[in-house]
Amino acid sequence: MKGIGVGLLGFGTVGAGVFHALRNQEDVILKRTESTFEVRAVLVQNADKKRVKEVEPLITTRFDQVMDADVQVVVEAIGGIEPARTYIEQAMVAGCHIVTANKELVAKHGPELERLARNNGVQFLYEASVGGGIPVLGTLLHLLKSNRIYRVSGILNGTTNYILTRMADAGVSFDQILAEAQEKGYAEADPAADVDGFDAVYKLSILGRLAFGAHIPVPEVRRKGIRDVTAAELELIARLGYRLKLLAVGEQYGEMGPISLGVEPTLLPSSHPLASVNGVHNAIHLEGDLVQDVTLVGQGAGEKPTASAVVEDLCNLSLPVPRRSLDEDPLLLPAAESGGTRFVFLNPRNTGILDADTLRQRLESIGLTVEGTAVSSQGGAGLILRRWDPSFASVLVAELGLDLSNLTTRPVFGSQGVQADQQQQVGSGAV
Amino acid sequence: MKGIGVGLLGFGTVGAGVFHALRNQEDVILKRTESTFEVRAVLVQNADKKRVKEVEPLITTRFDQVMDADVQVVVEAIGGIEPARTYIEQAMVAGCHIVTANKELVAKHGPELERLARNNGVQFLYEASVGGGIPVLGTLLHLLKSNRIYRVSGILNGTTNYILTRMADAGVSFDQILAEAQEKGYAEADPAADVDGFDAVYKLSILGRLAFGAHIPVPEVRRKGIRDVTAAELELIARLGYRLKLLAVGEQYGEMGPISLGVEPTLLPSSHPLASVNGVHNAIHLEGDLVQDVTLVGQGAGEKPTASAVVEDLCNLSLPVPRRSLDEDPLLLPAAESGGTRFVFLNPRNTGILDADTLRQRLESIGLTVEGTAVSSQGGAGLILRRWDPSFASVLVAELGLDLSNLTTRPVFGSQGVQADQQQQVGSGAV
Ligand SMILES: NC(=O)c1ccc[n+]([C@@H]2O[C@H](COP(=O)([O-])OP(=O)(O)OC[C@H]3O[C@@H](n4cnc5c(N)ncnc54)[C@H](OP(=O)(O)O)[C@@H]3O)[C@@H](O)[C@H]2O)c1
Ligand SMILES: NC(=O)c1ccc[n+]([C@@H]2O[C@H](COP(=O)([O-])OP(=O)(O)OC[C@H]3O[C@@H](n4cnc5c(N)ncnc54)[C@H](OP(=O)(O)O)[C@@H]3O)[C@@H](O)[C@H]2O)c1
Repeated sequence: MKGIGVGLLGFGTVGAGVFHALRNQEDVILKRTESTFEVRAVLVQNADKKRVKEVEPLITTRFDQVMDADVQVVVEAIGGIEPARTYIEQAMVAGCHIVTANKELVAKHGPELERLARNNGVQFLYEASVGGGIPVLGTLLHLLKSNRIYRVSGILNGTTNYILTRMADAGVSFDQILAEAQEKGYAEADPAADVDGFDAVYKLSILGRLAFGAHIPVPEVRRKGIRDVTAAELELIARLGYRLKLLAVGEQYGEMGPISLGVEPTLLPSSHPLASVNGVHNAIHLEGDLVQDVTLVGQGAGEKPTASAVVEDLCNLSLPVPRRSLDEDPLLLPAAESGGTRFVFLNPRNTGILDADTLRQRLESIGLTVEGTAVSSQGGAGLILRRWDPSFASVLVAELGLDLSNLTTRPVFGSQGVQADQQQQVGSGAV
Repeated sequence: MKGIGVGLLGFGTVGAGVFHALRNQEDVILKRTESTFEVRAVLVQNADKKRVKEVEPLITTRFDQVMDADVQVVVEAIGGIEPARTYIEQAMVAGCHIVTANKELVAKHGPELERLARNNGVQFLYEASVGGGIPVLGTLLHLLKSNRIYRVSGILNGTTNYILTRMADAGVSFDQILAEAQEKGYAEADPAADVDGFDAVYKLSILGRLAFGAHIPVPEVRRKGIRDVTAAELELIARLGYRLKLLAVGEQYGEMGPISLGVEPTLLPSSHPLASVNGVHNAIHLEGDLVQDVTLVGQGAGEKPTASAVVEDLCNLSLPVPRRSLDEDPLLLPAAESGGTRFVFLNPRNTGILDADTLRQRLESIGLTVEGTAVSSQGGAGLILRRWDPSFASVLVAELGLDLSNLTTRPVFGSQGVQADQQQQVGSGAV
């Protein structure tokens, strides 16, 4: 039995979760890994905050005291770039393994930190940074080694998924549901990181690095949030047989080939495995050349699921991490706005005059390929158009006498890009 | 770079898939594991069958020739108990690692084979035996080590899931869809292993062993197939807001506590993550005390997904497998038939007379708790009854003037057992 000393940075949702989990799971961990983990110091910002009794003797506000507490692993659960980054670097240099839940840091500085870890012979693990309890990074690293992953798509932010699910179910506005989510503790007082897509972009960038072995700087990931989604739009999308999700999609076109990464409200056919992932659940759909596809669904956040991911990383500190060469300068492709199927939402104010059939006929008469139309009781209209070309937007505006600002378009998942067909395939052979 | 010699037993769907995968993924495998795998001999039954050119020189019908071909790993893809079992034992004794896709063998003789492997210092891996390409065994072994898993439920057989999905969608009979599935190669000429639930029982028994650390002999797993499911029943179930799945459920009540394992057609609320798993997909829902729940969905069979699982096992031969003590004599609990919610299907011939409201009133008047009723256009009726007790069957029969043979009851998932409430919980805390 080895007693491993843990220094915990942060004692908020994640830090406290890890502290309690290490106590509650101690016997299971011992049985399965022949190790025990002992938290020997806990760094916080505010020394005066009331904490649970058991942790009080371990609390400090000085990082050097954590490093002096005979710790072999540092768990970082502070968040943000500084001081988390400096602490992690110092701990690595001192020979400590690092486990972190900090997606922003891993997305922005992962490659340097990984190099520093390698140079110091320590592990740098961050399962909790993507998808909460869902062991997706471990799956990519250890369980899909022989697969060339060509697409990763996911619902990576529980707050926005909760908001979109509730808006669709209750038919009410973004602002109203956001307020509800804040009240329930599902959304932060400043919701920008979630609703503007930053959080999902961080996670996608981490997933893309593991899946494609390529580092894409965060500012180069396409990003669109959900603030402009309306209940009327969601109603039309549902009637057309789709669901709108804030979808993160990363694709690679051929091994070591160009990559496209983006987070954007996207239509999924109701039958797609991700379409039925509702509420605060997260899900990741992995497509590989051998396995075809695997979807992982689970709790994307919360004290226990996040602690689960951190503690699982602790249990796996001795697992060899497979080598992945990192392409630091991959070719980035913009999102394909051409050729695929696209949803067009025409704002209520302008379309009250039309019924669905007339609309379809008018659009077909000017050469558009209409896959579906729906007109809302509230007056808006939704179209599914195939072989979309960005120039169609101005054609539509002119033909229907609209303002460009009254027209929103969204991608329809699985209809773009070179590998769209592969996505539709179902595993062949005997069952 | 290490060149590892592989002996392949069987060159059917799985064997050939592994052979091709090892060639197609060679560079990826080399990059990530610094190893290459070379198939050095292939055992088949019929020497005269025409095979792809590249494999011809390796083909043999003599197992001793495989062992003489400088192999360090034997991949078993023959199926059935003998001669697979004897070959595996001989290979282990000769110091070879074993990777197998053989669920029947692993379910029936896993514990002995694992002991033999341990005694000979070799690995015995079988990811492909459960869920095709879905890396569920790896997830349980390596990525959920610190979790106490208290329930495993899954759609583990693609053939029956395809049949139930098609029956529900097309509204036609079991026999008709079975014939269709056989034509498409989704079902065997002899469908018993699938439709009577044996295949799912093998897989559940393997999952149960890894999840609960307990060996439950196959004959003791409760088993009910799908032959008695009718299209009329499925129509009513859909109208009540549920889906019928051949669900495999394993539960453990407390650590090292009693266990219940069973495979049975079961109703899932449409919103449950497994309810939307359709066609030949498989899915496994894992519930643990820390992670809350994780669902894995993917291709449960087919050449490539199954080869993926085998090849991933090959890539992981050097990963240390965590210790799990095995309780060889766990206490088995029968399925809880009491206290939970149950669906009752009343056969068409007898209920044409009733409308849903009258039916509900009559049942409530005799003290039953009715959660839902639906009457089919074809004359049958479906009920959802709470706090079911097996004695209700005779009450219903008497009250409605039925024959006992005209009444089928099915469990409703998530409503039984001690931990039913836990299942409904959604992860708390911030998102
Ligand atoms: N919450 C989740 O469900 C979740 C899920 C996945 C990943 N994460 C990630 O996990 C990290 C932590 O999130 P959280 O929700 O646990 O945050 P939190 O509840 O706000 O807790 C932050 C903790 O860090 C401490 N802290 C803040 N600034 C500090 C500083 N300069 N020096 C020392 N300690 C400092 C705070 O100290 P005081 O206690 O004294 O204020 C507090 O204990 C973030 O990177 C987040 O993105 C969170
Ligand atoms: N098919 C799937 O999608 C799938 C998925 C998961 C797991 N599995 C499991 O994988 C195993 C193999 O399935 P499969 O579908 O590949 O079977 P298959 O297509 O029927 O192939 C069986 C192979 O084994 C050979 N064989 C049969 N009896 C033999 C004997 N006595 N001595 C030597 N070779 C013998 C056959 O030789 P000939 O070629 O000469 O006939 C054939 O090459 C089974 O345990 C199955 O449950 C299959």
